[in-house]
Amino acid sequence: MRKVAIIGVGMTKFGHHWDRDLVNLAVEAGSKSIRDANLHQKDIQALYIGTMSGGLFINQEHLGSMISDYSGFKNIPSTRVEAACASGGLALRQAYLDIKSGNSDIVVAGGVEKMTDIGSYSITKVLATASDTEREAAFGATFPGLYAMMAKLHMYKYKTTEEQLAYVSVKNHKNALYNKYAQFQKKISVDDVLNSPLIADPLKLLDASPITDGAAAVILASEKKARELCDTPVWISGSGHATDSISLHDRDDLLTLRASVAAAKQAYLQSKIQPKDIQMAEVHDCFTIAELLALEDLGFVKKGESGKFIETGQTEIGGKIPINTSGGLKAKGHPVGATGIAQVIEAVLQLRGDAGKRNTNAEIALTHNVGGSGGTSVVHILRR
Amino acid sequence: MRKVAIIGVGMTKFGHHWDRDLVNLAVEAGSKSIRDANLHQKDIQALYIGTMSGGLFINQEHLGSMISDYSGFKNIPSTRVEAACASGGLALRQAYLDIKSGNSDIVVAGGVEKMTDIGSYSITKVLATASDTEREAAFGATFPGLYAMMAKLHMYKYKTTEEQLAYVSVKNHKNALYNKYAQFQKKISVDDVLNSPLIADPLKLLDASPITDGAAAVILASEKKARELCDTPVWISGSGHATDSISLHDRDDLLTLRASVAAAKQAYLQSKIQPKDIQMAEVHDCFTIAELLALEDLGFVKKGESGKFIETGQTEIGGKIPINTSGGLKAKGHPVGATGIAQVIEAVLQLRGDAGKRNTNAEIALTHNVGGSGGTSVVHILRR
Repeated sequence: MRKVAIIGVGMTKFGHHWDRDLVNLAVEAGSKSIRDANLHQKDIQALYIGTMSGGLFINQEHLGSMISDYSGFKNIPSTRVEAACASGGLALRQAYLDIKSGNSDIVVAGGVEKMTDIGSYSITKVLATASDTEREAAFGATFPGLYAMMAKLHMYKYKTTEEQLAYVSVKNHKNALYNKYAQFQKKISVDDVLNSPLIADPLKLLDASPITDGAAAVILASEKKARELCDTPVWISGSGHATDSISLHDRDDLLTLRASVAAAKQAYLQSKIQPKDIQMAEVHDCFTIAELLALEDLGFVKKGESGKFIETGQTEIGGKIPINTSGGLKAKGHPVGATGIAQVIEAVLQLRGDAGKRNTNAEIALTHNVGGSGGTSVVHILRR
Repeated sequence: MRKVAIIGVGMTKFGHHWDRDLVNLAVEAGSKSIRDANLHQKDIQALYIGTMSGGLFINQEHLGSMISDYSGFKNIPSTRVEAACASGGLALRQAYLDIKSGNSDIVVAGGVEKMTDIGSYSITKVLATASDTEREAAFGATFPGLYAMMAKLHMYKYKTTEEQLAYVSVKNHKNALYNKYAQFQKKISVDDVLNSPLIADPLKLLDASPITDGAAAVILASEKKARELCDTPVWISGSGHATDSISLHDRDDLLTLRASVAAAKQAYLQSKIQPKDIQMAEVHDCFTIAELLALEDLGFVKKGESGKFIETGQTEIGGKIPINTSGGLKAKGHPVGATGIAQVIEAVLQLRGDAGKRNTNAEIALTHNVGGSGGTSVVHILRR
């Protein structure tokens, strides 16, 4: 089977872009990724774009065609894929399969979301369409509530503390200080988190990722093209994707995202490596508890041990396994469809040694992108 | 490269299913396709689902996870793809690329839409999100108006008549008489069409495809699995996908869907055949004028000659090239996300000789699925 590499990356600043629309953000990220790969528009053979809800956020579907059009591409195939907040990870995966199949040699995979243009509808209600709308959201169980239940149970079962949860935010904000694309470049303390407004007990405002506009894109190439065009290709050595019950209440174990376990297993098998070989990871910290669960589901620590692991600094830059060096969803921001691609961009920068003050010298990295409360999970393993 | 075949098909009755929801329809179609392939649920390795706007129609995104979950699949990868009314065709294409890449051996590709559950929002407004919402729909140019402009110009340039347009509906309704899954099994006359209410001059109500609920699914398999499991595999010998400007007003020629021309060219090249070799086709007749344009863009007739070609019966069953033997979008119904898959099901039934009174004895068939006013086009060529 053909090998696939990432040879270019580009993203917008994440934040509130009141003066720009979705397509404008997508075109900026795509153009930057093409330039980063030293390519021209005409070299791109196909486009995959992840976005959660163009329909409800901006009243626009058919964004594959629209983004290709406004990017000035000439009639190339362009496909939108969606799996709620894992839409970006899936766009990467479909681009990877496209090249693996022999269909294309150079493909752009992007993710984008414009969340702040919404009119009368509430953003929380749009995000709730990633859950089983009629059986979760209709009863008031929006995502802060769903993740709060997981947090409560983790605290009850494993003596995890609110301080340990808070530490995820503190670390991710610290990492984002050195990421100019991050939404927040502001140091916070454990006390700041604990004293922020309660949104769904035990989660406070600063346990939650923010509302963000932004776009991210990467260029994928076949082995032959990658070696021709690029001195520092980053190889996709494993791609895993799995689903689980869309509803939290349908799971035997509320504290295991089976989709993440299954997706990680596929990616580890393909890469022929084990969790201990991973040197940095970008994981899906939509809420602080989600980062704890990710460490456990990905096999970095045993079930129940993530709180202590984080509290003792082992996930910091310089620690045993740096997690969310980009600032994560919490501090870099979480434009839902773009997140999966932005995670991959951080991994690529780390593997290239281009992450500046965030550099970890990693040679093997993992990205972990979740949709809903774990209905979808996408895991990629990347290597120098 | 690996060959890919279709080894099972299944669909719901198309129509108004007031008592059923989207997922229920999707599960029926999927189950039927698995049974048709003599497989069991556990044999399915991945799922692709095309749907245009779960968000705006039923307030539910993340349908890849949800449909996999409610189908009882255990953690398989499940991906939603969207390109407005070409979502189904793209789901097939992504499933095809997945198998070609070596990632999977047996995959289900489905399409579904539930259009009649909508609340206060209008269906026409949801469908308009397939256009450039801010630059077309906002000025009143919804799809009946856009296709009416194409029809007017075709009439002006090529002396095409309203009767010739009407004949598309008459033929498609006639074909649907023998399709028990069709929304309408009712013969109509040219006069019926001409006397139906005008919706956008020159298009009348009976020039337009209806609002429909429905789902369709097919099982794809690698060559090895297809030969093992199936006596009558239908091979995907060409897959084309292209985009164009999302807005009609951005095109040099309003009467050529460049996306269709480009997608067809890819599919013909891969199949090593020419338009004259195609023995039946399912084309995207969202409005009668769209069937005329399709015949021209796919190379079955020269530009401007489609009206006469249709009027002289050459697209009827028994004619030179039977078109839309299923009844087409007009009479079979048009649950937008499901249409691309339902077209492929008709082609498979024809190639297997399982289309009953609609049989054409075709050995090579083509399917043509369009998003918006031609912003996306997906073409597949299928062979016995």
